[in-house]
Amino acid sequence: MIRGMTAPSFMDLALKTAENAGKAGEVPIGCVIVRGYEVIASAGNRTLTDRDPTAHAEILAIRQAAEAIGTERLVDCDLYVTLEPCTMCAGAISFARIRRLYYGAADPKGGAVDSGVRFFAQPTCHHVPEVYSSVGETARIFCKALVIFSEICSSTSVCTSASP
Amino acid sequence: MIRGMTAPSFMDLALKTAENAGKAGEVPIGCVIVRGYEVIASAGNRTLTDRDPTAHAEILAIRQAAEAIGTERLVDCDLYVTLEPCTMCAGAISFARIRRLYYGAADPKGGAVDSGVRFFAQPTCHHVPEVYSSVGETARIFCKALVIFSEICSSTSVCTSASP
Repeated sequence: MIRGMTAPSFMDLALKTAENAGKAGEVPIGCVIVRGYEVIASAGNRTLTDRDPTAHAEILAIRQAAEAIGTERLVDCDLYVTLEPCTMCAGAISFARIRRLYYGAADPKGGAVDSGVRFFAQPTCHHVPEVYSSVGETARIFCKALVIFSEICSSTSVCTSASP
Repeated sequence: MIRGMTAPSFMDLALKTAENAGKAGEVPIGCVIVRGYEVIASAGNRTLTDRDPTAHAEILAIRQAAEAIGTERLVDCDLYVTLEPCTMCAGAISFARIRRLYYGAADPKGGAVDSGVRFFAQPTCHHVPEVYSSVGETARIFCKALVIFSEICSSTSVCTSASP
């Protein structure tokens, strides 16, 4: 548990998790979930490692956080992720009743918050978190590099199988 | 493993799984995944039982199928689900590279295939399955009842926490 961190610090932690995912051969995306300035969950992408197409950083962190606090509703929790969540993860964030979503870089190719289906603006979205984008200069620059990485290798099997 | 079944039969199996989920206090939605006429995964909603907001029938079945065949890409697999998938599950179905999606009732309130964000028709959707809706008369009638059930109790904590 890491107490007393600020928003950019939590994003730094998510970036560190993303780096570790990249070192493991995954698309380098990381996520942490915070409750009362305490990190209760932390995960990087693990789709290849786990052979699980749903094992995006946000899904894994949400499952971890729900287990940690013993409820499927993370009403007073905030989620930090290095890249704009995809459609699957935006749906999960809404179902989990996440209070605030902080993300690094926008993802015009696969994002679903301010790009793509803009899920939180749709009438079929029944819980909308507060959204903060481009959190932290480091996050912004680092995450832009992730998007470029993802675009460059989008035609390879590794990248497309684990793309955000 | 159940071999040699037809599309309505697979939907009957999904409906049976949905009934079992309902008996367990969950929103009664069920899903099976089929590969070469063989059922490789079967799951009902378990959001309350598992205290996991991502534990929709489709997500659980996809994870189970990926584990069964040892890959995160279910390229030659077909998914049967009693209700139109939500945004989260439509995203997961696309990531999993499901070949064909068969669903029972439409879900104008929370669906994301022919309702809501219509994810498979969006440019940020990178794999689109073949989609067959209203599969099987029994499925249609039964699933309509599920939608009514869901609407009636949408203001209660149990239903909204586990809504599709």
